[in-house]
This record gives sequence, structure tokens and C-alpha cells, in this order.
Amino acid sequence: MEDKAQIHEAIKVQGELVRKLKSEKANKEQIDEEVAKLLELKAQLGGDDGKHQFVLKTAKGTRDYNPRQMAIREKVFNTIIGCFKRHGAETIDTPVFELKETLTGKYGEDSKLIYDLKDQGGELLSLRYDLTVPFARYLAMNKITNIKRYHIAKDFDIAGQYDAMIPDAECLKIVHEILSELELGDFCIKVNDRRILDGMFAVCGVPIDKFRTICSTVDKLDKMAWADVKKEMVNEKGLSEEVADQIGEYVSMQGGMDLAERLLQDQKLSQSKQACAGLSDIKLLFSYLQLLQVTDKVVFDLSLARGLDYYTGVIYEAVLTQTGVGLGSTEAQQEAHAEDSVSVGSVAGGGRYDGLVGMFDPKGRKVPCVGVSIGIERIFSIMEQKAEASAEKVRTTEVQVMVVSAQKNLLQERLKLVSDLWNGGVKAEMMYKKNPKLLSQLQHCEEAGIPLVAILGEQELKDGVVKLRVVSTREEFDICRADLLAEIRRRTSEA
Amino acid sequence: MEDKAQIHEAIKVQGELVRKLKSEKANKEQIDEEVAKLLELKAQLGGDDGKHQFVLKTAKGTRDYNPRQMAIREKVFNTIIGCFKRHGAETIDTPVFELKETLTGKYGEDSKLIYDLKDQGGELLSLRYDLTVPFARYLAMNKITNIKRYHIAKDFDIAGQYDAMIPDAECLKIVHEILSELELGDFCIKVNDRRILDGMFAVCGVPIDKFRTICSTVDKLDKMAWADVKKEMVNEKGLSEEVADQIGEYVSMQGGMDLAERLLQDQKLSQSKQACAGLSDIKLLFSYLQLLQVTDKVVFDLSLARGLDYYTGVIYEAVLTQTGVGLGSTEAQQEAHAEDSVSVGSVAGGGRYDGLVGMFDPKGRKVPCVGVSIGIERIFSIMEQKAEASAEKVRTTEVQVMVVSAQKNLLQERLKLVSDLWNGGVKAEMMYKKNPKLLSQLQHCEEAGIPLVAILGEQELKDGVVKLRVVSTREEFDICRADLLAEIRRRTSEA
Repeated sequence: MEDKAQIHEAIKVQGELVRKLKSEKANKEQIDEEVAKLLELKAQLGGDDGKHQFVLKTAKGTRDYNPRQMAIREKVFNTIIGCFKRHGAETIDTPVFELKETLTGKYGEDSKLIYDLKDQGGELLSLRYDLTVPFARYLAMNKITNIKRYHIAKDFDIAGQYDAMIPDAECLKIVHEILSELELGDFCIKVNDRRILDGMFAVCGVPIDKFRTICSTVDKLDKMAWADVKKEMVNEKGLSEEVADQIGEYVSMQGGMDLAERLLQDQKLSQSKQACAGLSDIKLLFSYLQLLQVTDKVVFDLSLARGLDYYTGVIYEAVLTQTGVGLGSTEAQQEAHAEDSVSVGSVAGGGRYDGLVGMFDPKGRKVPCVGVSIGIERIFSIMEQKAEASAEKVRTTEVQVMVVSAQKNLLQERLKLVSDLWNGGVKAEMMYKKNPKLLSQLQHCEEAGIPLVAILGEQELKDGVVKLRVVSTREEFDICRADLLAEIRRRTSEA
Repeated sequence: MEDKAQIHEAIKVQGELVRKLKSEKANKEQIDEEVAKLLELKAQLGGDDGKHQFVLKTAKGTRDYNPRQMAIREKVFNTIIGCFKRHGAETIDTPVFELKETLTGKYGEDSKLIYDLKDQGGELLSLRYDLTVPFARYLAMNKITNIKRYHIAKDFDIAGQYDAMIPDAECLKIVHEILSELELGDFCIKVNDRRILDGMFAVCGVPIDKFRTICSTVDKLDKMAWADVKKEMVNEKGLSEEVADQIGEYVSMQGGMDLAERLLQDQKLSQSKQACAGLSDIKLLFSYLQLLQVTDKVVFDLSLARGLDYYTGVIYEAVLTQTGVGLGSTEAQQEAHAEDSVSVGSVAGGGRYDGLVGMFDPKGRKVPCVGVSIGIERIFSIMEQKAEASAEKVRTTEVQVMVVSAQKNLLQERLKLVSDLWNGGVKAEMMYKKNPKLLSQLQHCEEAGIPLVAILGEQELKDGVVKLRVVSTREEFDICRADLLAEIRRRTSEA
């Protein structure tokens, strides 16, 4: 298989040689010899004669993005990056794969989802699973103790020893800004703290070595009913019914700063120092969120657990409470849609992970971190649905002017003009044909949403002008060549 | 290893419990029991007590990008994407890994450089090696016959059946525009055609099945002297001295349209139909390049071969003829630099590959394609060297205003103001401390290149103003809170 392309090439060349010999009426022996070589080459292809047999697809779990989808993605990315820059973040980048041991032991039950690379006689490598662990590795490796950075337009983190809850509050402000600006519909940001969860587990009587695995089970409450979550705790994880019921009481609680205050007085929970530390921080966090004007969307929710192992303090997750997309018009469809909207799930999440960098540092030195990750793929799917539901056309290029010819034999003139436009910084294109029809050139403008057409004809060339056509109104007027750039800029400048 | 994080967490919780029991003077038996559990947990860590043993590094052949490097990369990407958009390209994206068979047999001798993923009971996967093969797979899979697209800010391709050399000329125009705009120093774009190379091999007497491997050897002429290239042809690839010498004569030729005309008259070369087709297209290409005003940098060079197997027609490669970076000031250093500049090598390259899409199509239907790939990593290294050599500071954020406090206990006021600025679309930040010193806040602005400071003090709050400080001039003046947004926008708008 390795040399297939070479063989194809050789077949082509050999075929040409045989045809040449035949056309030159060379002697039969020579022709036969070359034909034999040709057949031998073809035999090497296994008889498929250039047609391959394999399935044409992308790898499982991956997908392509077409130009329309990319145009929507670009809009989403611009909004998110704009927000990260507004908050003063730098950006870094880390490789697509990491040493396997860098990722080992950081994700808990998610670890089995990591892709490993084949051992090619070098290092054991894995594809990165998130951006948080590579970020922590980067900080430890470069001995960085303070940074605010974003990473591939989706992860934002603040590392450094600061006063409690100030960076954490900014992360929630960022989620609020991004989800508001993207206009995805109403949303809610759930907040909790790992220390409250651990304290709750302790006072309910969960054995210490089961904290993380019970935490993973609680995390399923957004997709499963309490009865099923309880069943998993009792049947699979070995808790007693009584312990599970006590947990069940706590995880049904939702509120704001008031709930944190009430729980600080809770006879059972207040026995846990950890829980009290978490509850006090939630109170402080809400006071900052009020100043940042985002409490309208934030809920303190004791059922929020987050799956990953590395969180140590405050955790949060944003969910859409309605998708804002009309997917159906009949009542039944709307009902199905209402059910759907529950399963849209998290569109952003994050939390504090004060121990992760220390896991990479040779001396175990800690760098406290808090961050947020935006659920790009989910957000993008919703935006795509919205775009499909709306009548608005998604442009996939930004071309401002199409250079067209009204008669034949004007390729050279079109090339000269489009070159002048490119040199002047105008987004322009022309058809790659010597003599395209005027109608098909104009049709392309309508389809691609190109606002202006620069028409060249013999008369225009004689007069030293270009006929400029406004596609939306079909107006046309002659512009002197010297004024063309300025006129195009004036007509396409964004207001 | 999988559960290390869980064990760390459990140790923390257990340690807290032991401390609590001790502080509460619980009975010795109970304390001893809990201490035993704690020791057992620590034993599970293998005695490293939280300090890891592994080497802290990125995978071989990969690297991180720090904020300064990313700021330079962003500038490079913006220039390149700007050019691609100016030429009316859409964009697509394809996954980081592909089915292994998608990549097999497309790259020739480079195939051994492909990374395979571990078989995880599913599909055989490999990391993509370039963007051209995934693009061809995408076209065949989606039955696309016409598209102009860019891919991850570095690959630009035009697919479709068009009139000869028009899209090819645009690709060269794009290389010219990008390298000019990046101001990397003087450059040269070498052009050749695979059909000319194959024709030349044929008339020199190279056996057909050695065309591609001899092509790979010719490709080394930019790094090796002819004598060494000849040695490889004769000793390793088995050509006769005589055949190699004939090739040597051709590959020393360089010129413009005139050389193509002369070679069309060459007694030996003109016997090859393939070579003549290539030479005629080179002539046509140069006529278009004249109209596009880029012939100043383009050279027809018969030694240009390009390593990859999939090219079928015109090929090109841009090299910097001087890096434009003063790497040393003594004569010896400049000499070393001059040698260096030779090895800077290709910063862009591409060509026509009319057979690749057909290799993916079940019926072998061809989609002619021509494209160019920008050597982002090399360009970025050069830009980084330039930035280091120059005194100019590279900003890693775009923060316009820093909100600072002149006295203690103004955290709430800072949060309110920075929130207003963010809501107003201003790029702003503040320190995450309750009571930072004024001096350290101002120093941060100087270091980070933040142009404006919004100072809050008790007097300003009483007067309903903010003191705005211009960092470069150290001017300060009071601005009414209601006018602040407009004033900041006015002072930071790009002219």
C-alpha cells in the first residue's frame, strides 16, 4: 500500500510509453516488452486499477466542519475570545498529545476515555483529554505562579495565590457574559463547593475512600432521577439506604446566599470544618457576584458535583433552561422539544483546582487555580440549529466585489483589475475561466451574497471606467478607475 | 496510578479527621484506628507522599507556546487569514486524526513519519500528517467538485475543473502577498512542473519505476551539493553515472518564461510530450503572473522537485534569500548568518495534485486541485527572532484600562467599576487582592503596557468621578463617571 501513488504514477507514464510506441509503429517485440511491464505494474495494485475499496469516513467520534458550519463557529469563537480578551487574558498553546503519564491519575472515572498513541519506539503518548491538565503541566514546567490565560478559545483560567473568591467570581462573570452575548436563550449557573460535598458525605457517614466515587454518582443527578442515583449508591457503591437518604435530603437543596447562611447553622453539616469553609466562601462569592451584577442567573445547588477528580473548592456549571430554538410547531413537537431542552445539559463548567499543579512539581509546590471551560461543541450545535431554523443566510466568505467581464477575451483585464483590488486590500474574486458568461458570473454573486460587482466591458475599458453594480438593488453606475478603490471601501465599510 | 488523585484527596480528609480527633482529645483507641487508616492510604502512594517521580516535559517533537510567542503567532495568523479571506476563500476543518488507510500510500518516503494511534478495539487511526490528504478525503466524501477553501490558517486550495493555470497563478499571488506583508526579508518563489521532471527523467534514461525515488533525491538539492546528490543517485538508487550527469545538466537551469521557451526547443527534452505540456503551462503561468505583478520574485527552476508523491503538475516553493534579521554584528557572525540564511529553507510550498481526490472516490472520479501551504512554524521562528532582536515590546494582552484603588477597603468599588467597564465592552482588569498597594498596581500597568489607569480613591468616590491616568505621559485628570466609557473609547480607539 505504501507505494500505491508511485505505482499509479508509473502506470501512467508506462501507459503513455506504450501508446507512443504503438503510434510510432515500433517493432512488436519492443511493444510486447513494455506492455508486459505495464501489466506487471497494474498487478501490483491488486487488480483494483485505481479504485480503492475502503470505507470513506472520518474516525469514530470525530467530524468535519463544512464552510457554513465554520462560519457559525467563527462567530462563536469571536464572541468567546472577545470576552476573554476583555478580561485581560493572555493566551498559550500546548501540543495535541502529551506523555501518557502526564494525564494518568488526573481524571478519575473519565480516564478510560483517553486515546493512547501507538508506541513507536519512543515515548508513551496520549491525546490530551482536556486543556486543564496540560495547563497545570505547563505551569509546573515553567515555574509560573501567576497567570491569567485562555487556551484555544474555550478554556480560561486564573492561576495564583490571591484573596478568596475574587478570581472565582470573575470566572462566573465570564460565563454570564458569554452566554448572554451568544443569545442562546435563558440559562442558569449552578454553583457548589467540593468541600461542602465532602463535608456532607462525612456527616452522612460515607466512608472516606468512597468520597470521589459517590461524588461521581451525585454528578449524574442532572441526567438521572434521584431514585436511580440512590439505587447506584446502594447497589453498586455499597452505601446503606439510610446514608443515601441523608445525602438525598441535602442534594435536593437549592438557593442563594440565604441557603449558605442557613446551612452554616445546620446542626449536622456545621460539624464539618470543610463544609463550613465551603459555605463561608459561597457566601463571600455571592457578595462579589452581586457587585458584578450576575446573581440573577446563579443558583447555589447542592446536587452539583462535577465528574472530574481534580476540583478542590468551588465548582460551577451553566445549563440552558430553554434552547431558544423553535424546533417544532405542533404541540407534540413542542413537548418533545421541552424534554429535549432538559438534556441539552451543560454549556460551560469549571471550578477551583488547587492541587493539580503541585502534582507536577518535583517539590509538590502548589499553585492555586480556578478556571472555566466553555462547551464549544454544544453551543455550536445550538447555534447551528438556530441558523437552520431562521431564514437568514449564512455567508461563508467575506468577498466584497466580484470582477466580471461582459464580453469575451477579457481575462487579462480581469486579472489586472482583481490584482489591483487585492493589492488595495479589497476582498475580491473572479471566475477561473477564460470566457465565463455574464449571467453565470452575476448568479454566483447572488448565491454567495457578494454585495458588489465590478463589470468590465469593451466600452468601459475605452472610457477608463468600471461599471459598479449593487447586487441588492441592481443599480449600476460607471466609476473612474482611479476612484474605484475608495468607492468600494465607502460602500462596504461596516457602519 | 489511576486513583492517585483520589488517594491524595482521601489522605487530606483522613488527616483532617485525625487532627480533629486529637484536638477533641478523643479516646486513644479511636485515634489509633484512624491513624492506621491514614498510614495505609499513604502506603498506597508508594511512599512518594505526593511528589511525583516522572520527567516534566512535552512529547518529543512537540512544544508549548508561551503568551509572548502566541502574540507573535496571532499576528502571523491574522496576516495569513486576512490574505485568504481577501481571495474569497471559505474555511473548513477536519479532525486531528484520520483512519490509517486514509493516509496510507499518499506521501511516499514521508510515510514513515506518520504517528499511529494505539488500537483501542476500534479503528486503526493515525494523526494527520498534512492538511491536503484530509482535504481530498473531505471532497470525495462530500462529492464536492468546486471549492476554494483555507484550513487552519495555513493551507489554501482551489478545487475544480477550470481553465489552465488561472487558479495556479492565484496561489502564487497569495504566497507573494503573504511573504511581502509579513516583512520577512527578500524571498524567491521557485516554480517547476512534475511533468517536466518526469519528461526529463524519461529522456535522460531513468527507468519509470525509479521516477518518484529519483525525484525525492533531486528534492535534496536545496540542502545538498550536486556532487552528493549525484552520489545518492548512483550509489543508492542505482543510476548510471551518465544518466545522473544528464540530469545534473538540466537541474542546474534557472530562468523565466524565456527558459521555458528555450527548453521547448531543446532537442532531447522536446521529445517528451509530458515535458512539453509542462513547459507550455509554465509559459502560460508566467504570462498570468505578469498581470498579477509578481514576476519579480518568481523563478522557473528545474531543480525544484518537492518531496511528496501526490503532485501531478506545477509545483512551487518559496525560500527566504535573507532572513532580514541581524543575528550578529561582527563579520564572522554575519558570515555565519549568511550561511544560516541558506538553511532557513522553504517558508511556503505547494502545487497541483489532480489525482488525489480520485484515490478516495469509489468510482475514481477526479477533482483537479491546486494549493499552497504556508510554513507557519518557520515563519513564526523568524518573526520571534526579529522580535527578540528589536527593542519593541510585545504585548500579550489587549487590556485598555486597569482599575486601581488609591486607599484600602475599596475592593467593592473596584469590582463595581470593572464590571461596568466589561459590560461596556472595555478591556479591563484589576488586581485580585483586597488591598493592593497603589505602586504595585501602577507598576503592573507599566510592565504590561496597559495605556490607561482608572484610579478610585475616597475623594473621587465622594465627587462622583474617576481619576484617569495616561501611563505613557503620567498625566492625570478627573472624569465624571457618566463620561468614563466614552473617554476611554476615545483614547484607545485605533486610528
